[in-house]
Amino acid sequence: MNKNSSNIMALAPTTSNKRETVCIFGTGDFGRALGHKIIQSGYPVVFGSRSTQTSSLIPKGAEVLSHMEAAQKAAIIIVAIQRQHYNFLTSLAEILRGKVLVDVSNNLKINQYPESNAEYLAQLVPGARVVKAFNTVSAWALQSGTLDASRQVFVCGDDMEAKQMVMDIVRALGLTPLDQGSLLAAQEIENYPLQLFPMWKFPILLSLGLTAFFFFYCLIRDIIYPYVYENQDFSFFIAISIPNRICPIMALILLALVYLPGVLAAIIQLYRGTKYRRFPDWLDKWMLCRKQLGLVALAFASLHVLYTLVIPIRSFVRWRISSLTVSQALSNKTEPLNTTNAWLSDSYLALGILGFFLFVLLGITSLPSVSNNVNWREFRFVQSKLGYLTLIFCTAHTLVYGGNRFLSSSSYRWYLPNAYMLSLIVPCIVLVVKFVLIFPCLDKPLTRIRQGWVRNPQYSE
Amino acid sequence: MNKNSSNIMALAPTTSNKRETVCIFGTGDFGRALGHKIIQSGYPVVFGSRSTQTSSLIPKGAEVLSHMEAAQKAAIIIVAIQRQHYNFLTSLAEILRGKVLVDVSNNLKINQYPESNAEYLAQLVPGARVVKAFNTVSAWALQSGTLDASRQVFVCGDDMEAKQMVMDIVRALGLTPLDQGSLLAAQEIENYPLQLFPMWKFPILLSLGLTAFFFFYCLIRDIIYPYVYENQDFSFFIAISIPNRICPIMALILLALVYLPGVLAAIIQLYRGTKYRRFPDWLDKWMLCRKQLGLVALAFASLHVLYTLVIPIRSFVRWRISSLTVSQALSNKTEPLNTTNAWLSDSYLALGILGFFLFVLLGITSLPSVSNNVNWREFRFVQSKLGYLTLIFCTAHTLVYGGNRFLSSSSYRWYLPNAYMLSLIVPCIVLVVKFVLIFPCLDKPLTRIRQGWVRNPQYSE
Amino acid sequence: MNKNSSNIMALAPTTSNKRETVCIFGTGDFGRALGHKIIQSGYPVVFGSRSTQTSSLIPKGAEVLSHMEAAQKAAIIIVAIQRQHYNFLTSLAEILRGKVLVDVSNNLKINQYPESNAEYLAQLVPGARVVKAFNTVSAWALQSGTLDASRQVFVCGDDMEAKQMVMDIVRALGLTPLDQGSLLAAQEIENYPLQLFPMWKFPILLSLGLTAFFFFYCLIRDIIYPYVYENQDFSFFIAISIPNRICPIMALILLALVYLPGVLAAIIQLYRGTKYRRFPDWLDKWMLCRKQLGLVALAFASLHVLYTLVIPIRSFVRWRISSLTVSQALSNKTEPLNTTNAWLSDSYLALGILGFFLFVLLGITSLPSVSNNVNWREFRFVQSKLGYLTLIFCTAHTLVYGGNRFLSSSSYRWYLPNAYMLSLIVPCIVLVVKFVLIFPCLDKPLTRIRQGWVRNPQYSE
Repeated sequence: MNKNSSNIMALAPTTSNKRETVCIFGTGDFGRALGHKIIQSGYPVVFGSRSTQTSSLIPKGAEVLSHMEAAQKAAIIIVAIQRQHYNFLTSLAEILRGKVLVDVSNNLKINQYPESNAEYLAQLVPGARVVKAFNTVSAWALQSGTLDASRQVFVCGDDMEAKQMVMDIVRALGLTPLDQGSLLAAQEIENYPLQLFPMWKFPILLSLGLTAFFFFYCLIRDIIYPYVYENQDFSFFIAISIPNRICPIMALILLALVYLPGVLAAIIQLYRGTKYRRFPDWLDKWMLCRKQLGLVALAFASLHVLYTLVIPIRSFVRWRISSLTVSQALSNKTEPLNTTNAWLSDSYLALGILGFFLFVLLGITSLPSVSNNVNWREFRFVQSKLGYLTLIFCTAHTLVYGGNRFLSSSSYRWYLPNAYMLSLIVPCIVLVVKFVLIFPCLDKPLTRIRQGWVRNPQYSE
Repeated sequence: MNKNSSNIMALAPTTSNKRETVCIFGTGDFGRALGHKIIQSGYPVVFGSRSTQTSSLIPKGAEVLSHMEAAQKAAIIIVAIQRQHYNFLTSLAEILRGKVLVDVSNNLKINQYPESNAEYLAQLVPGARVVKAFNTVSAWALQSGTLDASRQVFVCGDDMEAKQMVMDIVRALGLTPLDQGSLLAAQEIENYPLQLFPMWKFPILLSLGLTAFFFFYCLIRDIIYPYVYENQDFSFFIAISIPNRICPIMALILLALVYLPGVLAAIIQLYRGTKYRRFPDWLDKWMLCRKQLGLVALAFASLHVLYTLVIPIRSFVRWRISSLTVSQALSNKTEPLNTTNAWLSDSYLALGILGFFLFVLLGITSLPSVSNNVNWREFRFVQSKLGYLTLIFCTAHTLVYGGNRFLSSSSYRWYLPNAYMLSLIVPCIVLVVKFVLIFPCLDKPLTRIRQGWVRNPQYSE
Repeated sequence: MNKNSSNIMALAPTTSNKRETVCIFGTGDFGRALGHKIIQSGYPVVFGSRSTQTSSLIPKGAEVLSHMEAAQKAAIIIVAIQRQHYNFLTSLAEILRGKVLVDVSNNLKINQYPESNAEYLAQLVPGARVVKAFNTVSAWALQSGTLDASRQVFVCGDDMEAKQMVMDIVRALGLTPLDQGSLLAAQEIENYPLQLFPMWKFPILLSLGLTAFFFFYCLIRDIIYPYVYENQDFSFFIAISIPNRICPIMALILLALVYLPGVLAAIIQLYRGTKYRRFPDWLDKWMLCRKQLGLVALAFASLHVLYTLVIPIRSFVRWRISSLTVSQALSNKTEPLNTTNAWLSDSYLALGILGFFLFVLLGITSLPSVSNNVNWREFRFVQSKLGYLTLIFCTAHTLVYGGNRFLSSSSYRWYLPNAYMLSLIVPCIVLVVKFVLIFPCLDKPLTRIRQGWVRNPQYSE
């Protein structure tokens, strides 16, 4: 319903007069914006303010009264005031008894106060029914009507009926209320809008660091080395050739890093003989951002695919192929088909295609709407079985790409191996350890440990 | 749970006998289909009808009684009758007192009546508890079991308990009830199934118009001109070459049109010195369909990518490259590598790849399930920062593609410039204005205006 | 909110002491894991167990008491015991009166018992308010914090207040409760975690079978035949050339199989003159897995696109083109452009691109979050209109690809036609029959039948 509600609202100004008056304390920007939107949705609105002068900024159709008068007119009072000014509400305690107080406030940083603003409000005015709502919506979004991101309004409160009344208003504004339970959830709801991709920080920093390292590595090997020794200017490699070396390397390493913590956890559990002791903190954090690591890896893989597919369009590649052909024609030679080369080239491409295909499948199943439609068994099947298959294909793709160049000394420049060789270290370790863990002598005890069995119950913990 | 419920139902015919009788008024197609499905889910069903003859069409297991008798047997009565026949219900008012009346009706056009059918029903039978539900499900979908689109059933009503009873039936049918609040929401719920992509009309019409214009423009320049002057038949350009000119142009223009209204809004706000006056109507509507514009632009960009990547497979391109090579071989010349060309070609491809990559990222974050998991700050970051970066990359891609051809007179045919030059106008304007707006002397007042500050409070509004 | 809740929990250990004690019966793996998580969320936890010895495995901070003592301490009792041990609860009936009993059990196979475990529990302890919950979450996921798949907790129960209490706990754990209605839904909820892609079995088996058939077909024609008659080793075709023959064939056949049941249903309805008789079982099942068939087809189409786009990078293709060019140069011939070939090549590529583009659109609209935002009319428009357009484009793509090779005898090897010819049979049948069904003389009665009209009412059913 979301996508259309705003324009329907425009087409169908509510014809009914049933809606009850809503009171808003505070005539600041957010209070006015919310008032404006609530009036549009057909509710009468009263503002409660220290100064009852009607400013030109107050939305048309709204009354401005003193806090006391305004509160008397409505069953729902939206408190659009900053937390530090809540104190004056204690003096209104008598009038606010039994009324629904909606806390819409946000803080400036996460966990700024020991208790949430809504709980603080509930302590100040014990007779009122406090509901937390609307804090995830911005004033600007309310006014401009561009509510794409913030249609969801988290609502929580201890009184079911009060919550229902607030959720009805939320729906009338064309937004989607999400019941988050009792007022205890307010802290989390208040922290929510302050975050900026908290789970993405580590994967993105890690990949930026690794990218920088491999960029300079390739710069030295592929541009500076030929310039110094062969006096050739390949600076234009910076645009495509070098990114197309870095991307697959990053994709492979990050993908392996998605599966490394699982392998480490298995080793730790086998060593300890129990699953009931906590993992070290770094491992816990690592496990929590595996999805994000995987998605960053998928981004690099996609870029690698695009960079690879444009290869035949590049003017440099066209020039190289055409001059090769011309020189063959001039020297009157026709080379026979090298079947080994054809096999190597085709199979590394095929492995890459299959690996990328499975990788995209993994990415699609990690979309929230898809993973919500999948039960735990199915999710495990996809993320674990298909995940390892992806890692195997991608590692094999890189190995076959290397082909018979691994041991040739010409691929070492200034003693630096080809960058893709470095990228094989982590995935090979993960695959080898995982392979070892599959052996029954290790798999059986591990399965039992994960089902709750403990090797030495008396020692554990 | 959705995906499997229908087959589970088949496997597990409800063994319990707890379910209460449901009465359906009306034996039309929808009433029968709904009755059939409700019986399958284990509820006893009674039909209320003018003629109590059991037709062969009535689902097996259902009784057909007079309206009065049927209503007495059940606590829930589904009114599967058209609105114009609701009148007779007034005569049953006594029996319907306290019962749950479910309005399932739809209209033929949006806002056909001043009040919604459900509200009209509530006025006719004031003693009954009216719930709106099931209107978004089609009879055909109920019968064929293909409910992919319409698993969601919007439910609204003033009585919580009545709503819960209806939502239980909805869930028993394998559908997902969505509580839309009080009966006031009925109007919107009744309008919902009548829409056909209302927000997409403008973007699609606009892009059809522009596509037609650029198609004829390119037809004249690239097919008719060479045919007239050089007598060459390039008619096959219609299949790939010309679409591959139109698609990037459309993508770039539409992407720029996504960001143009934001820039215009900023200028208007700066000029007026307040954010509290409404934007002109066309600007409001434009802002509301920016997401759709962006997605159409992404569709064109994706087609452009596909068209570009098949270039080396085209038989025309293969012929051209091979004849170039043959003529080089015959004339015994080998051209040296042109580093400038290599730079230009590689960097325009790289810019295009990065631009497309960011564009796809933007598209993914606009998926409802992804944007619901993102707060307002994160959404703004992605859509604004990443959006402008995309626009910059795509504009740069087009500029570098032009390279040194911009001023060469040979690129003008019949005084018509190359089509891609036209496509650069809008994005360049947007980027230049946006760049100007970033200067502190404009950015500061704009930020303050958006936080609610007003330059001349007495004049505004 | 989902994505961040776990780390917020870590940052903000609940400071409030309001949460009420939760009792857990059973100290098995799941009971302990759940207890651990509940304690982390700030609830006091008491375990009820036969032996009240505090094992080292019991989460820190939890008490272990006898069942009776533990039950007295809490209003909510989570029964983390297997169904076969429920019997002893009858002896506690007096203490459990009015308490909320949460059934978290799962079975080993679908529909193992005649009634669900939760309903069985409700029969054993009639005085308690039984709620089903938590069965979709795994102990391992609770402990490792990796809850990506299983954030959703299905909750059902006959008592609204009891359900609310349980849903509050669910939310406090950072999970998303989904109200599934009354306890009747427990059977379905208990079956849910036992499934492994039930709707995907048929499409995947079918495509595996067809893939194997076409693989051997192509193996014979493309590798064994040239080896026998021309003694050429094309074994490397197995990596890319043959998959790239199989994938488009599979995509086209499976896509046609998506639309075949709809066409068959129309014929059956026209023949019977009514829509009120059930389709044969196989047709019903087929219709239910159309979405999955379509998605498998899309997977094959995507692979086909990738395989096609890497063609110019393959070393075999480069060798073939270069030797062709060299031989042309040596024989001093330059071929003129063959416009017919250019037309054929360009238009089959263009048809393929458009077909794939529409196919991806169809795939995107089948994402749950997208199809939920679309009403029935819109969904039908996309899936039916756009779907047939996709089928037309893809069939035309294959027909034009064949071009003038259809009747040439050289394309038959060992009397076997080219594989792509076989793939055209089903889609052509579907398109022809659909085309016939569009004629008014058939379309009109069909529309009336689907609106509920019956040709011979007395005979039907």
